[in-house]
Amino acid sequence: MTNPTAAMLVIGDEILSGRTRDSNSHHLAGRLTEHGIDLREVRFIGDDAATITATTRELSAKYGHVFTSGGIGPTHDDITADCIAAAFDTPIDVRDDARAILAAHYDARGVEMNDARLRMARIPDGATLIDNPVSAAPGFSLQNVHVMAGVPKIFEAMLESLLPTLTGGARLQSRSLMVDRGEGDIAEGLSQVVAAHPGVSVGSYPAWGGAGYKVSIVLRAADESALEAAMAQLRALFPEGRE
Amino acid sequence: MTNPTAAMLVIGDEILSGRTRDSNSHHLAGRLTEHGIDLREVRFIGDDAATITATTRELSAKYGHVFTSGGIGPTHDDITADCIAAAFDTPIDVRDDARAILAAHYDARGVEMNDARLRMARIPDGATLIDNPVSAAPGFSLQNVHVMAGVPKIFEAMLESLLPTLTGGARLQSRSLMVDRGEGDIAEGLSQVVAAHPGVSVGSYPAWGGAGYKVSIVLRAADESALEAAMAQLRALFPEGRE
Repeated sequence: MTNPTAAMLVIGDEILSGRTRDSNSHHLAGRLTEHGIDLREVRFIGDDAATITATTRELSAKYGHVFTSGGIGPTHDDITADCIAAAFDTPIDVRDDARAILAAHYDARGVEMNDARLRMARIPDGATLIDNPVSAAPGFSLQNVHVMAGVPKIFEAMLESLLPTLTGGARLQSRSLMVDRGEGDIAEGLSQVVAAHPGVSVGSYPAWGGAGYKVSIVLRAADESALEAAMAQLRALFPEGRE
Repeated sequence: MTNPTAAMLVIGDEILSGRTRDSNSHHLAGRLTEHGIDLREVRFIGDDAATITATTRELSAKYGHVFTSGGIGPTHDDITADCIAAAFDTPIDVRDDARAILAAHYDARGVEMNDARLRMARIPDGATLIDNPVSAAPGFSLQNVHVMAGVPKIFEAMLESLLPTLTGGARLQSRSLMVDRGEGDIAEGLSQVVAAHPGVSVGSYPAWGGAGYKVSIVLRAADESALEAAMAQLRALFPEGRE
């Protein structure tokens, strides 16, 4: 069985200008790996309706799931919900179920439900709401596209509402070895491991360790015994490595 | 005059698995904004040759510049240089100028130049080298694609070598106002500013402020007087805001 595939779409001019640093893609990557869904691609795009609509169509056709963040608040630059509806030629308007959620939230706090807040109840026909335990305004799933907020605290909460509803696959097992050498010193040994263990993925991740380079070697495989065999060869090649 | 456009391609399975958090895209976004180059899109993709080659072709045709990070080291999973050469149907092999740079670096340190390290001298025909003051192994520019390392310290150093060679455009001026209110409270006022100042871009960036929501309103324009007029209206709407 192969795992479901996914892409993420990070929406917002503020990310591309460098004003805001996206953290949602890294969070999603880790959670999907734990859930057995393979994240294949991430795209950051700006607040442009034609781009959001076209990119949604492209990624939805190509991957099992598309996760979006950003652009579902109450202000003029929050256009994601309408763009997702357009991508699937689906009507969108204020929906009673979403309005009821917002009304209950604002009533309890003595906050006025104005036209701007009501925009957050615009949900495409046929979409399933994603619960927002932080600030009530829901996300939604339309076909295979899951639309969530950009504020990390809310994105992360919405993702936890959504993930249990998605079927995951097998999680790859991994082992790692940290070696205080440059990649140029270990490349030949790694190639031997790659050749001897075709079912094991071998990654090499260099970093600057202050006094010099170090490299983290990561082995991944679904099959535990294949993984252990590759790890044994790796330990023999680099006995000074730290697991 | 419109500014040059750009896209970034972040290459590496470790980013998509959540093992490593990319920092190069945020760094590039800030530096390009300062340089007057408009970053329009960022993509994270894995270590797959067909994907790297096809994505490079697509982005190179669509944007003025493409900046890549990752996959130019000495190990088996470093395939970026060959993929970029393939994207432009350009021959690639160990090039004398790159080999001389590496040889000088390793000779000075008493480090052996092995086959793995020599791979880092594989440069496409006609490419211009990008200086790497950290660890010598160069990046390169082929047509409008600028190929740099994934290790942030090296990526950032290569970018500083490259940027002065690229023609920038006008830098947008910006003003910001921080308001301790939810976006739902300020959305109507913001729409008035948007309507009254068509030459000014108005962004609204919510954040969780501990005690409640706050929002940063950012105005951007090339024209200083248009910017000040919009800012005056914004101050009148939200006199409690902090600049």
